[in-house]
Amino acid sequence: MLLEHYLKTRHYTEALCAPLSTEDYVPQAEAFTSPPKWHLAHTTWFFECFVLKPYAKGYCEFDPTFDFLFNSYYRALGERAIRAQRGIITRPTVAEVYRYRQHVDRAIIQLLNDTPSIESALEDLITLGIHHEQQHQELLLSDLKYTFSLNPTHPVYHDGAVQVADTNSCSGWLSIAEGLYEIGHNDASFCYDNELGHHKVWLAPFSIAKDLVTNGEYIAFIEDGGYEHFQYWLDDGWSWVEQNHIRSPLYWQKINHQWHYYTLAGLKPLDPNAILTHISFYEASAFAHWKGLRLPTEFEWEVASQQLDWGKRWEWTSSAYLPYPGFRISAGAVGEYNGKFMINQMVLRGASVATSDGHQRYTYRNFFHPHFQWQFTGIRLVKENE
Amino acid sequence: MLLEHYLKTRHYTEALCAPLSTEDYVPQAEAFTSPPKWHLAHTTWFFECFVLKPYAKGYCEFDPTFDFLFNSYYRALGERAIRAQRGIITRPTVAEVYRYRQHVDRAIIQLLNDTPSIESALEDLITLGIHHEQQHQELLLSDLKYTFSLNPTHPVYHDGAVQVADTNSCSGWLSIAEGLYEIGHNDASFCYDNELGHHKVWLAPFSIAKDLVTNGEYIAFIEDGGYEHFQYWLDDGWSWVEQNHIRSPLYWQKINHQWHYYTLAGLKPLDPNAILTHISFYEASAFAHWKGLRLPTEFEWEVASQQLDWGKRWEWTSSAYLPYPGFRISAGAVGEYNGKFMINQMVLRGASVATSDGHQRYTYRNFFHPHFQWQFTGIRLVKENE
Amino acid sequence: MLLEHYLKTRHYTEALCAPLSTEDYVPQAEAFTSPPKWHLAHTTWFFECFVLKPYAKGYCEFDPTFDFLFNSYYRALGERAIRAQRGIITRPTVAEVYRYRQHVDRAIIQLLNDTPSIESALEDLITLGIHHEQQHQELLLSDLKYTFSLNPTHPVYHDGAVQVADTNSCSGWLSIAEGLYEIGHNDASFCYDNELGHHKVWLAPFSIAKDLVTNGEYIAFIEDGGYEHFQYWLDDGWSWVEQNHIRSPLYWQKINHQWHYYTLAGLKPLDPNAILTHISFYEASAFAHWKGLRLPTEFEWEVASQQLDWGKRWEWTSSAYLPYPGFRISAGAVGEYNGKFMINQMVLRGASVATSDGHQRYTYRNFFHPHFQWQFTGIRLVKENE
Amino acid sequence: MLLEHYLKTRHYTEALCAPLSTEDYVPQAEAFTSPPKWHLAHTTWFFECFVLKPYAKGYCEFDPTFDFLFNSYYRALGERAIRAQRGIITRPTVAEVYRYRQHVDRAIIQLLNDTPSIESALEDLITLGIHHEQQHQELLLSDLKYTFSLNPTHPVYHDGAVQVADTNSCSGWLSIAEGLYEIGHNDASFCYDNELGHHKVWLAPFSIAKDLVTNGEYIAFIEDGGYEHFQYWLDDGWSWVEQNHIRSPLYWQKINHQWHYYTLAGLKPLDPNAILTHISFYEASAFAHWKGLRLPTEFEWEVASQQLDWGKRWEWTSSAYLPYPGFRISAGAVGEYNGKFMINQMVLRGASVATSDGHQRYTYRNFFHPHFQWQFTGIRLVKENE
Repeated sequence: MLLEHYLKTRHYTEALCAPLSTEDYVPQAEAFTSPPKWHLAHTTWFFECFVLKPYAKGYCEFDPTFDFLFNSYYRALGERAIRAQRGIITRPTVAEVYRYRQHVDRAIIQLLNDTPSIESALEDLITLGIHHEQQHQELLLSDLKYTFSLNPTHPVYHDGAVQVADTNSCSGWLSIAEGLYEIGHNDASFCYDNELGHHKVWLAPFSIAKDLVTNGEYIAFIEDGGYEHFQYWLDDGWSWVEQNHIRSPLYWQKINHQWHYYTLAGLKPLDPNAILTHISFYEASAFAHWKGLRLPTEFEWEVASQQLDWGKRWEWTSSAYLPYPGFRISAGAVGEYNGKFMINQMVLRGASVATSDGHQRYTYRNFFHPHFQWQFTGIRLVKENE
Repeated sequence: MLLEHYLKTRHYTEALCAPLSTEDYVPQAEAFTSPPKWHLAHTTWFFECFVLKPYAKGYCEFDPTFDFLFNSYYRALGERAIRAQRGIITRPTVAEVYRYRQHVDRAIIQLLNDTPSIESALEDLITLGIHHEQQHQELLLSDLKYTFSLNPTHPVYHDGAVQVADTNSCSGWLSIAEGLYEIGHNDASFCYDNELGHHKVWLAPFSIAKDLVTNGEYIAFIEDGGYEHFQYWLDDGWSWVEQNHIRSPLYWQKINHQWHYYTLAGLKPLDPNAILTHISFYEASAFAHWKGLRLPTEFEWEVASQQLDWGKRWEWTSSAYLPYPGFRISAGAVGEYNGKFMINQMVLRGASVATSDGHQRYTYRNFFHPHFQWQFTGIRLVKENE
Repeated sequence: MLLEHYLKTRHYTEALCAPLSTEDYVPQAEAFTSPPKWHLAHTTWFFECFVLKPYAKGYCEFDPTFDFLFNSYYRALGERAIRAQRGIITRPTVAEVYRYRQHVDRAIIQLLNDTPSIESALEDLITLGIHHEQQHQELLLSDLKYTFSLNPTHPVYHDGAVQVADTNSCSGWLSIAEGLYEIGHNDASFCYDNELGHHKVWLAPFSIAKDLVTNGEYIAFIEDGGYEHFQYWLDDGWSWVEQNHIRSPLYWQKINHQWHYYTLAGLKPLDPNAILTHISFYEASAFAHWKGLRLPTEFEWEVASQQLDWGKRWEWTSSAYLPYPGFRISAGAVGEYNGKFMINQMVLRGASVATSDGHQRYTYRNFFHPHFQWQFTGIRLVKENE
Repeated sequence: MLLEHYLKTRHYTEALCAPLSTEDYVPQAEAFTSPPKWHLAHTTWFFECFVLKPYAKGYCEFDPTFDFLFNSYYRALGERAIRAQRGIITRPTVAEVYRYRQHVDRAIIQLLNDTPSIESALEDLITLGIHHEQQHQELLLSDLKYTFSLNPTHPVYHDGAVQVADTNSCSGWLSIAEGLYEIGHNDASFCYDNELGHHKVWLAPFSIAKDLVTNGEYIAFIEDGGYEHFQYWLDDGWSWVEQNHIRSPLYWQKINHQWHYYTLAGLKPLDPNAILTHISFYEASAFAHWKGLRLPTEFEWEVASQQLDWGKRWEWTSSAYLPYPGFRISAGAVGEYNGKFMINQMVLRGASVATSDGHQRYTYRNFFHPHFQWQFTGIRLVKENE
């Protein structure tokens, strides 16, 4: 079962790369994105470093320089290639990276086949590596979209790619009563460490939208001067709008008075009924303010989530990304996964059309800085109960 | 009573400036600080703009350019002098600013004397103006200290100034039981809008230190390599340490192997028993991590506060500055006071040795970006109950 | 004679400051400007450091910290206050700086009175100090103008101040024949080291304008799209225009469709017949290109200068600031005066309405980076002889 | 003859790329470098734009988007892809760019075969295109070296690549007498427009070194504290050293107390007898100052050049890059080739080991900003005649 899950995940990463030319694997458009080649190698390095080296007797390291090149932010493991210079590392080539993947896959298969009863620490690390790779599958897509969008020729990734012209299937409001609720992951299934610390929160009553904000609704905000009136904006958000001349969600452009957007299937006219995506927290907050409504807290979201249709957009919450009660950073490098990012970021809940199957959870806590637009983000609104 | 409070506050601002030479009123050392002259004028402008213009019949504006020069961040009121250029505005002179204060004071006195039964909206605005000025009194001191600290001659503000070599008067731990607690301002006395939205929170049990961290304890952190090991730091905090070559709290310097610090009474040897001050949230968080403890949430702090001795340092909490349930930004410019800053900042609770009398409250929510050191900040630790 | 020259120069600096309020002495608007207080103290420090300390027996230093505070760029003399932070040094006060001037003046008077036959090295240093102070007199005015210009209230320095609405008194072209000419300072009178290295240059024939470009001529350039067409501009100049949104000379602004400019006598309507000022080299070069003409080299200028009326504007030449043949940097700190700036700067010849009397020379080589506008600069055109 | 020259040049560009993997064609390490793919396409675009479109009847443009993607700095021809983002344009692929080259080559062949007597304007443009491509051949190598040098694995371009461990074949000094000399290109052979304006200059007597400075001589400068003493440096040069922590020529690194450098053949121990390369003008100037000597002017260099062995390094001169007398920028886009860069750059004379055959001229004026190290630059010294 574990091996099957492993192999399926590994194959899916490579399937995502099938439409790419060799050149597409190389560039890093901004420091916050990474090249496809790096995603392919880094997820592999994770298994080599945390699984094979400690657990696979006689494992032969593929190339000692890879430890340096494909470590991401695990400072405990030594020097890393400078994060902003991933796009200039042309060697190893793409072909060598695929050989690296094969080498590691074979070793994992052998390790699992050779181990009659696998110890739970090893199983946990492989499972973590699988989820880590799933997380990078979505990043690979959002990073690739960002890079392609900067090419004036609007490259097509593939024609049926990552459907973002999807529409809402529900509408109306869901009311949640005041009360003491339980939050956090609480069973034996997999979760990240930041979901632990199961605890109680008291919530005031509220109503949460069953549908997400659409492109059409957002156009109304733009046309009402949403980007020109500071009143709707948080102060840092307004500075971001002014300094970056933001006038729309990412990838939108007006051509002959008609809104278009760049998608992984190329440049397309905007569908007003489709669900809005690629907005920053600042935009989500300003839109809600303009509507006279607000975003949910991550606790409200989690309490309501089982009665909602979700999984189409990462939904910005009004909660800052902070530790749950009793949160402890794990010892060693694996402990750097989540805890050190608990500052200056906002929580997103749900999952998106680009999220890999099996990577969705009610308790999942995604997080990004409030100005980032390049993820598949969206808006769900809340109103106080009268 | 209101007039007396007004006059006492206004006089205290000027008393704080008594030791200054005319030159000291002018510079702005960094964009986040303001010149004393600006604090004197801006607090006065607040009364002119929000009280006299709307309520004092026949009030004659002192100088129409002041509206532009001494507005701070109230975008609703039009163009503002660029925030980072306050230090180059030499005219009006200091003497003119004092005349401006007199002019406004006389008009307020007349307004209050002429109004037999003052309406509550007016009283609220004057009270808000008084608290606004008290807040600027502390800023005036912290900004002045920052400016003076950059002068290689270490100017003395005055010899008995703002005692920071104060020590703890309590020790040990205070235990708080699990339960549902009430948070927020809940009576008729004055508070800022961000304290409203009285609501319930559920707290797990915890113990909170009765004393604040001392210089001596912090030296132990430094000597144990606190600034050299990324493990103690949040990721953004570590970047801040590296980019700014931070190696100690603000104003500390080592002279002949002995720690000294710049104070408003000049450069002094560091007292290891005195309470630590001028540390950023990042430093507070790293210190707590190194200790194996943590910072309190703002809710834990508020619940415990009535049983604590406090008021010596602004105590960093682990809570991001976010709206309370039901928080609504007030209409108009006054509404810009608090709400728009609810992003990327951390809450500080308590008050400091530089806080003006009468400006302390259990429910007061101060907030700054996590890298700022120039306020009179400190650390109170929390441990989970076993 | 020397003492008289010294005292006259020293008094003139103080006379220039007579219209200032204490506040005006403090700010530094940009790193390339300095506060009046700094100019007053730095020119005094020059005499203390290079004349009194080495030559005046028993001279008692006024304040040892001043060596640090008022050194400018003489790295050989040790640590300097950071150039960009001169505006935050409020102590010493202005009154103390005036006492410093008195202290040094008395010591210079005593030194000269006590020395029956003054040695030539000492005389040279005092003369250098006098010319140094004259140079700072002009800088004091141009820096003050820059600072005042950023104040939205347009302060008046004094009503008759630095007349820039002056007009040309000549017109037409002066032809210079091809030939071998001598360049550089060549007699016993004072000059800076960069004027030495008297040498020959061969010039092709050319004609040089007897008048300087006027505001009216420059308006024609603006109205013809001068700032919108890259064709007229050097590449670095065009980047400067685009990045800084330059659309006119410094201090110009359009009010109700009419050009005005800030002057030391306040904001005034622009006089089209007055001589243009406050343009960068990039603007001078673009204007000449637009006209189908060019700027003179510094050699052409020097050869023609005795037949020209000049002294109203610093005239940009097309010569980069480079050493003359045989130029040697003097030993010690005085050697830092000129030589180390011989890169990335353009030569200006002539003198301006703000230049102190006696500071003009045919061989004077002024120099600034090509983007600077804040000096009293102008344009003289050249055409090739047909 | 012209066609043969064309084809030889085109083939040589592709031969230079033979050792590259597809990935190597993509990245742009810094704004001042370009990807190999871009060099391949841009030189081709030059022929398409300036030769085929105006002269080849019925020429079918390969792809209209290429005009936008592969224009470099010819603003007259419309929008250009942002210079700093060349490394993220993955499409067209490398294979498509080679097809583009074939397409254009065929059209040029046909154009030249179909034209019995070629008009001189066309011949001039093709010749310009050939020299333009030769210039990019050297840039391709220096850019590639820069990119590879940032890869921690030190990739090998090829083992015998661009020999920089070459040594001097002459020594001693060449004396040149005082006199009037002629400067500039003066015959029917090809030159760039900046070499025209043949004119006279008067030179004082001087002696110029027959050899270039070696690595060993430069190590002596480093070991004597060359990078720690501001006295040797121009002011902007010293700022460059301090801000960028420069401590050696580009590509040098000390491993176990021994100097090594990255070369296109990989990381190698430094040969002290080899000719120094990859130094900025600031370093050349500081080294000369430390030696008590100076750099030649470009006029001295040109006068002496026929009696010197040269062609191994681009030799920094002390001349700023300025127009020759009578220089006129050509009309149209071709006129942007040289003239607009005549500011803030220094002239280099000679040629380097990376310069293509046939691209060397006594009158060639190369130019770069004074801080650039990534070209194959070197130092030749001059002393005044006693």
